[in-house]
Amino acid sequence: MSLSFDHVTLGQRVLFGTGAAAENLAAEVARLGASRVMVIASDFETPTAQAAAAGIEVALWHHDVVMHVPIETAEKARAAAAGHGIDLLVCVGGGSTTGLAKAIAMTSRLPIIAVPTTYAGSEATNVWGLTEASRKTTGVDDAVLPVTVIYDAALTLSLPVDMSVASGLNGMAHCIDSLWAPRADPINAALAAEGIRALSQGLPLIAADPSGAGGREQALYGAYLSAVAFASAGSGLHHKICHVLGGTFNLPHAQTHATVLPYVLAFNAPAAPDAEARIAAAFGAAGALTGLQELRKRLDAPKALSDYGFTADGIAEAVAVVLPAVPASNPRPVTTENLTALLRAALTGEDPRVLLDL
Amino acid sequence: MSLSFDHVTLGQRVLFGTGAAAENLAAEVARLGASRVMVIASDFETPTAQAAAAGIEVALWHHDVVMHVPIETAEKARAAAAGHGIDLLVCVGGGSTTGLAKAIAMTSRLPIIAVPTTYAGSEATNVWGLTEASRKTTGVDDAVLPVTVIYDAALTLSLPVDMSVASGLNGMAHCIDSLWAPRADPINAALAAEGIRALSQGLPLIAADPSGAGGREQALYGAYLSAVAFASAGSGLHHKICHVLGGTFNLPHAQTHATVLPYVLAFNAPAAPDAEARIAAAFGAAGALTGLQELRKRLDAPKALSDYGFTADGIAEAVAVVLPAVPASNPRPVTTENLTALLRAALTGEDPRVLLDL
Repeated sequence: MSLSFDHVTLGQRVLFGTGAAAENLAAEVARLGASRVMVIASDFETPTAQAAAAGIEVALWHHDVVMHVPIETAEKARAAAAGHGIDLLVCVGGGSTTGLAKAIAMTSRLPIIAVPTTYAGSEATNVWGLTEASRKTTGVDDAVLPVTVIYDAALTLSLPVDMSVASGLNGMAHCIDSLWAPRADPINAALAAEGIRALSQGLPLIAADPSGAGGREQALYGAYLSAVAFASAGSGLHHKICHVLGGTFNLPHAQTHATVLPYVLAFNAPAAPDAEARIAAAFGAAGALTGLQELRKRLDAPKALSDYGFTADGIAEAVAVVLPAVPASNPRPVTTENLTALLRAALTGEDPRVLLDL
Repeated sequence: MSLSFDHVTLGQRVLFGTGAAAENLAAEVARLGASRVMVIASDFETPTAQAAAAGIEVALWHHDVVMHVPIETAEKARAAAAGHGIDLLVCVGGGSTTGLAKAIAMTSRLPIIAVPTTYAGSEATNVWGLTEASRKTTGVDDAVLPVTVIYDAALTLSLPVDMSVASGLNGMAHCIDSLWAPRADPINAALAAEGIRALSQGLPLIAADPSGAGGREQALYGAYLSAVAFASAGSGLHHKICHVLGGTFNLPHAQTHATVLPYVLAFNAPAAPDAEARIAAAFGAAGALTGLQELRKRLDAPKALSDYGFTADGIAEAVAVVLPAVPASNPRPVTTENLTALLRAALTGEDPRVLLDL
């Protein structure tokens, strides 16, 4: 098969070290020559942010962080940055905090240093999101990509095991879905495979030893790669389904991803032998689905969409909304019939292998 | 083991497609909004460059390309670019041609689009090189990194099989040596592993079917990854040895790399079980050395340094020069004794396994 692709690698510096956030942040602020730093952290994350910022001078603390970045919240933060002559943004927190820093960078072109405390992955992408009149708009702008990401697994120790697992499986979904996404190419596939390997090793370690750094490091590293691969390859079938289940049916984000993933994998794998083999190898398992299901079992992962409020009544509508959004790159043709079967199986938590020879 | 690293990802666009160079170059020149393009190509590469530039307006053709980029050659090219109000550099060729474009970008900050015709890999790095009074100086500057690389395997069809093999094994050496180089990290290791896989699949295809695109594509893709991994991880033991054999003893570059590589692998592998396993998996072989040697056998690769003018008399001097340059990151402590044994084995083409339990 002929090799043909366009791949954009986003330039970024990653400093990875447990317990080293404060030291790495101080060195990076000095390297960038910044003197008026704005640190963004929610009230909840403020103690963590204070520890991370122990070695730098902070010109402005900003705590007004709201989920999905409402435009009013963004405008206030932009005005604060402008009013204080800020020359560098530092965000310490999860996706909403990083998102707010990006909203400021969009208009000000200020550089960002991101210090993530979850597996959201926004820090590794050039995608911004804003919510106006309860509609979320997203876009792409290289100016919102953090110049530097500082990963410190010690900052994720307070993330409870069940949230770590759900968020980690969300990262796993980024990796697996990127293999048949519209801009899938060998480079983002290699990074996705490395992400699967790291997440599959890290998540069971977190479950077994929540206060140990080893599993947290692997999961954080895997989540970073999942974001790089996903931002590069785009959304595949899995994300189209989960987007509808979340948006139209209000199902919880991470749990929906964790539940649906094995069904999409079982559905696509027979038509995507290269991806199947790559996923299997990354899990160190005989097959891709076997590897994923063994991991999910060890993690006691979510099993059925019915546990999260989805019902059989919603299937027809979900299918109707998902179908036109399915990427042309999907290895298996998606029809009303087979998508209905997929959602039926995911609803009840049936063995995904029923989809293999559908 | 704790995960701790600093990784710099260089931002770059890669357009990969056989027979698509002219179309991709025209689209990229338009995207960058350039109107005064300077195309750099040696006399030998000019027909290739003309074909690649078929869809763009060229303000200036520049053919004065000299190996290792002498400073006089660079100065002339810089003056030509300035004199013609150039706003974009396009280089079509191997390492010397890319190197000349970089020399212009160093001082002018002009963007570069690189269209490589060999596996040299310079197009994927921020490293420049200049030769003044027969001394080569190299340095790092992000401004010399090409904005875009256009890979077209059709442009490499004229590279003879033996040069493709030697140059491809040089790329293989970049990948393998990066696994224990000073800045080795999990990200550049994943890219190196993907490079090993692609090169090990592509090179035998080139040997079997020199006019087919399949093997050339895999080799070109693998060579790209080898350059990314090597630029990120730095020089390991293998490159330190080959640098001395080339610089002090004037041995030919690619053949020296191809010959020495199995000896360094055999030497280091027992002390680097993770790298060993990764290399083996990338080759799809039971062991790293087995995988490399099977490939070398299929390619009839160079076997003994004695075939290239090295003699036993040179070993003591080579050891003395290499020893202080060995990176601290090398997994196995290097001594006068074991380095002498390594070079003795490489001199005569002895089975590298003698080094495994040295």
